[in-house]
Amino acid sequence: MRTTTGWRAQGPGTTLRRTSLPRRDLRRDDLAVRVDHCGVCHTDLHAIRAHGDGLLVPGHEFTGVVTETGPDVTGFRPGDRVAVGNIVDSCGECAPCAAGQENFCREFPTLTYGGTDRHDGTPTLGGYSREYVVRDRFAYRLPAGLDPAATAPLMCAGITVWEPLRALGAGPGTRVAVCGLGGLGHLAVKFAVALGAETTVVSRSADRAAEAARLGAHDFVVSADDGELAAARDRFDVVLDTVPVPHDLGPYLKLVAMDGTLSQLGHLGPVTVETLDLLIGRKKLSSAGSGGRRETAGMLGFCATHGLTADVEVLPSARVGEALDRLDRNDVRYRFVLDLSDLD
Amino acid sequence: MRTTTGWRAQGPGTTLRRTSLPRRDLRRDDLAVRVDHCGVCHTDLHAIRAHGDGLLVPGHEFTGVVTETGPDVTGFRPGDRVAVGNIVDSCGECAPCAAGQENFCREFPTLTYGGTDRHDGTPTLGGYSREYVVRDRFAYRLPAGLDPAATAPLMCAGITVWEPLRALGAGPGTRVAVCGLGGLGHLAVKFAVALGAETTVVSRSADRAAEAARLGAHDFVVSADDGELAAARDRFDVVLDTVPVPHDLGPYLKLVAMDGTLSQLGHLGPVTVETLDLLIGRKKLSSAGSGGRRETAGMLGFCATHGLTADVEVLPSARVGEALDRLDRNDVRYRFVLDLSDLD
Repeated sequence: MRTTTGWRAQGPGTTLRRTSLPRRDLRRDDLAVRVDHCGVCHTDLHAIRAHGDGLLVPGHEFTGVVTETGPDVTGFRPGDRVAVGNIVDSCGECAPCAAGQENFCREFPTLTYGGTDRHDGTPTLGGYSREYVVRDRFAYRLPAGLDPAATAPLMCAGITVWEPLRALGAGPGTRVAVCGLGGLGHLAVKFAVALGAETTVVSRSADRAAEAARLGAHDFVVSADDGELAAARDRFDVVLDTVPVPHDLGPYLKLVAMDGTLSQLGHLGPVTVETLDLLIGRKKLSSAGSGGRRETAGMLGFCATHGLTADVEVLPSARVGEALDRLDRNDVRYRFVLDLSDLD
Repeated sequence: MRTTTGWRAQGPGTTLRRTSLPRRDLRRDDLAVRVDHCGVCHTDLHAIRAHGDGLLVPGHEFTGVVTETGPDVTGFRPGDRVAVGNIVDSCGECAPCAAGQENFCREFPTLTYGGTDRHDGTPTLGGYSREYVVRDRFAYRLPAGLDPAATAPLMCAGITVWEPLRALGAGPGTRVAVCGLGGLGHLAVKFAVALGAETTVVSRSADRAAEAARLGAHDFVVSADDGELAAARDRFDVVLDTVPVPHDLGPYLKLVAMDGTLSQLGHLGPVTVETLDLLIGRKKLSSAGSGGRRETAGMLGFCATHGLTADVEVLPSARVGEALDRLDRNDVRYRFVLDLSDLD
């Protein structure tokens, strides 16, 4: 057994405690990764709040450096920069796994934290820690030229918006609306613009319009303005709903063009829609939340080509509680990233 | 003003009253149709139950004979056999109307009953009557060789299942599941089989298996059997849910294959789904409920080619109350059709 240091949740509050943590000894196909930067995701906040008194260490989008490799590892060497997302293992044998879509693994993929290791049955502990041990298949080479801190959020926020943009064919000639301009939303705008789609931000208040334009958006719709919403009705082939709290999907469905899709992201749980809002215009509802190895690697390559990363605010990991509190108030542009070097 | 005779609802009960009804004088592009056969749809039951004390005459899938034409009508002559569905007018100018998809008219199409005429503002009164006056664009030539009584249900039940089968690409190489074997379901099976799709019926009890096979289905899944449901998980590209009452969509979503679609039919109102059921496998939810002129004409041509009509039980219109009561108990294989000749 190895040990490392990290931040564990203590009940539902945002005051995390610095503590020693176990990491497994390396298996034949494992990497040990020194975690340098870990993004702070809304899922972390949900998980902490839903948490009882067990051992919870959040964090599922991080970058760092390989420090050691198991004997069967051929793709990485100590010193390599890597990135890890919210999936760290899968059955590897079902049809989705065979297609590189481990996020749809029929046995359910192993999550980076809050999951259960499929070999030894231990709970997985996340990246708010100085070291992570991960199966080599679920580590990705960090592209040269991309800032490691600003790349960390690509591994969850990024892939969550990349996957539906790709699956729904966003590109030249398509019209994409991004509802909500937070961690997911700002990356969705950057990706959609870089993919060549005509990209519009839909946000409650007009004061985000300049920000949306700075991110590259071509247009802006104020969702609190009924007139603007009505004028944008039936206008978008793809509507990405990145609002991370329960809300009425009806107004967003009305923005979808004939045969288009509303993709609901970042909020897991029940959603209710009026069938008539789907029926008129033959609209579709979908959801996305992560991606498999194929799309994750594709996203990183795309980001390297386009020099595209998240807009981040980097804090020493000791300020994790502040990051969570400010995230909860939506007071971040656009993603907090913890610098774990203060754990040494 | 013309008059005819029909059956009007009296409050929420299924005892309809025979009464004299107004019909408008023919406009330049109108047809007068002697209604011979009108199907009895679940929507009729819903409408009667939701009804207060106004004038409601149900019926929106009927066939008959043209008796008179307005001066601008060139496509029909007295004596022509025609069919009419649940849409009798639309704005004719918006993009969906221009594409022959009047069911998605941006001003909302005029419904055959329970709607409001877009020219004179009067309420539309349905096909449980001996005569209907309809704009020529919304009458369809009844294909020779198809039984007029058995064709009437194609105009609502038929187009409601035809539309999503076509939109979702049902055909050779696709796997279609039809949930529920009623008025909509039995036509969905016939269409899917004739389109060349591998077709499976999903029904609560095994005693419908022989019927499903008689209709041409290739396989049968008992939805009350957890083992059968589990074995059919992720198996179908298209799942048509024809169950006409509120129910849990979760089990049906699990049947959808990766990138496939669950289309919810015949029940208007709110539906709730777990986003995780959509997310895993990148599944989509859609809804359908009628079709435009292009698909309606296409469906009738397809039915003529394949000799395909509904399985019906024809009753004199005076027994409309019995038909509604038995429909409510699901005691019909598969569609009641009223013979309106007893109104003469």
